[in-house]
Amino acid sequence: MNLPETGQKRVVIIGGGFAGISLAKKLEHLDAQIVLIDKQNYHTFQPLLYQVSTSGLEPDSIAYPIRKVLKRLRNFYFRLATVESIDPQGKMVVTDIGNLAFDYLIMATGTKTNFFGNEHIAKYAMPMKSVPQALNIRSLMLQNFEEADNCNDFAERKALLNFCIIGAGPTGVELAGAFAELKRNVFPKDYRHLNVDEMEIHLFEGAHQVLPPMSDHASKKAAEFLEELGVQIHLDALASDYDGEVLSLKDGSQLRTKNLIWTAGVKGASIEGFSPDVLVERLNRFKVNKFNQVEGYENIFAIGDIAYMTTEDYPKGHPQVAQPAIQQGELLAKNLKLILKGLPMQPFVYKDKGTMATIGRNKAVADIKKLHFGGFFAWFIWMFVHLMALVGFRNRVVVFFNWAYNYVNYDKAARLIVRPFQPKR
Amino acid sequence: MNLPETGQKRVVIIGGGFAGISLAKKLEHLDAQIVLIDKQNYHTFQPLLYQVSTSGLEPDSIAYPIRKVLKRLRNFYFRLATVESIDPQGKMVVTDIGNLAFDYLIMATGTKTNFFGNEHIAKYAMPMKSVPQALNIRSLMLQNFEEADNCNDFAERKALLNFCIIGAGPTGVELAGAFAELKRNVFPKDYRHLNVDEMEIHLFEGAHQVLPPMSDHASKKAAEFLEELGVQIHLDALASDYDGEVLSLKDGSQLRTKNLIWTAGVKGASIEGFSPDVLVERLNRFKVNKFNQVEGYENIFAIGDIAYMTTEDYPKGHPQVAQPAIQQGELLAKNLKLILKGLPMQPFVYKDKGTMATIGRNKAVADIKKLHFGGFFAWFIWMFVHLMALVGFRNRVVVFFNWAYNYVNYDKAARLIVRPFQPKR
Repeated sequence: MNLPETGQKRVVIIGGGFAGISLAKKLEHLDAQIVLIDKQNYHTFQPLLYQVSTSGLEPDSIAYPIRKVLKRLRNFYFRLATVESIDPQGKMVVTDIGNLAFDYLIMATGTKTNFFGNEHIAKYAMPMKSVPQALNIRSLMLQNFEEADNCNDFAERKALLNFCIIGAGPTGVELAGAFAELKRNVFPKDYRHLNVDEMEIHLFEGAHQVLPPMSDHASKKAAEFLEELGVQIHLDALASDYDGEVLSLKDGSQLRTKNLIWTAGVKGASIEGFSPDVLVERLNRFKVNKFNQVEGYENIFAIGDIAYMTTEDYPKGHPQVAQPAIQQGELLAKNLKLILKGLPMQPFVYKDKGTMATIGRNKAVADIKKLHFGGFFAWFIWMFVHLMALVGFRNRVVVFFNWAYNYVNYDKAARLIVRPFQPKR
Repeated sequence: MNLPETGQKRVVIIGGGFAGISLAKKLEHLDAQIVLIDKQNYHTFQPLLYQVSTSGLEPDSIAYPIRKVLKRLRNFYFRLATVESIDPQGKMVVTDIGNLAFDYLIMATGTKTNFFGNEHIAKYAMPMKSVPQALNIRSLMLQNFEEADNCNDFAERKALLNFCIIGAGPTGVELAGAFAELKRNVFPKDYRHLNVDEMEIHLFEGAHQVLPPMSDHASKKAAEFLEELGVQIHLDALASDYDGEVLSLKDGSQLRTKNLIWTAGVKGASIEGFSPDVLVERLNRFKVNKFNQVEGYENIFAIGDIAYMTTEDYPKGHPQVAQPAIQQGELLAKNLKLILKGLPMQPFVYKDKGTMATIGRNKAVADIKKLHFGGFFAWFIWMFVHLMALVGFRNRVVVFFNWAYNYVNYDKAARLIVRPFQPKR
């Protein structure tokens, strides 16, 4: 990789998600060369990806060029590259555009979809972890509606109009709600010669409730909201197979569907080159101490979803959501400055700001400290928090306008098949 | 194709561009079954495609779902399909999703890029006739900048940063101006360690002036504006070859470039199945009479860019721009109603509303009737006309906001490589 040798220490950050960006933004006055590597040139606001999948928002309003976010950083270099491995002893990052030596390395690579070893599901199901994947879901949904509108075979049409979501965490719940709103408000106008009641939305969850990590109150309320919207919830239901047409569950039941979206699990997007004992194997997360240092290394850190830090309050690690990532990124920025000054680092203490999930218009649930509430107020707060969390004034205005427009018109306007999706069959 | 037999006459429209949409929108009270076929599920506002290529607008704001545009039409059916051929005698359209019988057929298929038989250029150059193609140009431009930022080889870097546009019609001129603004206002902030002056924008035109179809005043003024922005104009220059790296001109000169955009010509996107004498071979346009009836057929029409109608004022056919397409579509709607009532049709008379092209902020040229003017006023009118011509309130607001934001901030914010483009090498 071509980078000038400035005599400064080189800090290499891998990943421009919440953790990497929060860290980099705070490094403004660090006397070091800062290099951020990502395989995309933009930061993705993942909590709103599901709205891209369901035509509510255009992709450009939840993505933001990394170079633009970090334009105020001095000594900053961005490199569009895929990291292949790390040589921790040789202090070297190996990428598809060459090697890069580092003094300090921060891994902020987040997670990837976990299919738990099921190769058929990995091949045929639709994951939703990136903008292109979200756009693939949007294309497939609209293509299948177009095909259904021209289809005289009832069983075939049902398969085209069955939407199955595996995993009722926040993403699955939000996606199910958004599909239900499309069915209720949008598709009947677009497909007037089609019986849109034939569209079914099935939400499968292996646990005994939806939103398993949230409070009982939130789970119950969310299930109520989903049922009001016509979503069919299947609890204690585990998917065992899918061939692009037929979904099989562990209990032996089957369902024909050409739309299977997998939001049932993630695992760390770890990088090769470390000895296996720095990883929690099952989760693929790097074991870190309270300063986010990877076990055994002073100059290699992991932050965000990829980091596994056990504390008294979080014996199984922090939740893999935006807030721990942001807070760890911000703390590490402080700690890097302390290191360069030869001062001791500060340990990480997670401030839980609460959890929320939105189901549809005026319908959301929130757990904020000891408060559990649902309905219009939770929905309003959800919108406000997400709008403010978006990067950049332009994106905030565009998202706000789209939300207002969609709310007033009961519409989701971005119903475009820009790049058709070719399902594997 | 599956469509109900309602006993009504069936009107089949192929193509949802300006001509097809203008026609369909006016068929609200026609007692007939109306079927519109397009291979995309959206209408593209082609005059602003160049802003998608150059990160000024997101694709969703210049595209509009066809089903949504025509939601007020009764007896309306949309089919996402590719038309393979027509059987004019058997009154049948052959598509990739089956055949469809018609009573009246309207071909509104527009144009496609014309590489004038040059296979190398067709293989390696970037056309810009559709949203995906515009996004490919955006991706390639940003990928090449990323590569250049990591490139120590001067000649290689120059090839990555040379932007060559073949054809100085409105599209070529607008594109060149937009690249020049990126170079001036945006890239220096994004690529601070790169000498952005190394970026060159070359505009090649086979004729003796830019904007050959416009007035001399407009041509001169546009050339002035482009030179002010640093665009290098090459007149009387014809491209003869391109291998993905080296552009060769007819005069023997060569230039290394990894960005070659081809806006030098179009030909009609005609459909197979007709005898060759209904086509103007060189242009691939259907010969039509003053009612837009294809020569020799009473029930088959061609409108817009694909139609070749010679009149006293337009002995070489009408210009292939939006206005004739819109006007022919609207007139044909009237004429179809007259036909169904057994009344005589009205002939087409083109009302020329003028031609405009924008080069950059505060810089545009306009020929409106006998008025020729350029500068801020032309630019302001250009913006107003294009904003009002966009389909849908939402798209107008989003485009307006983006323009205002970009104007105030000297920015073009949609700098995302959503789907990387893989150049053929």
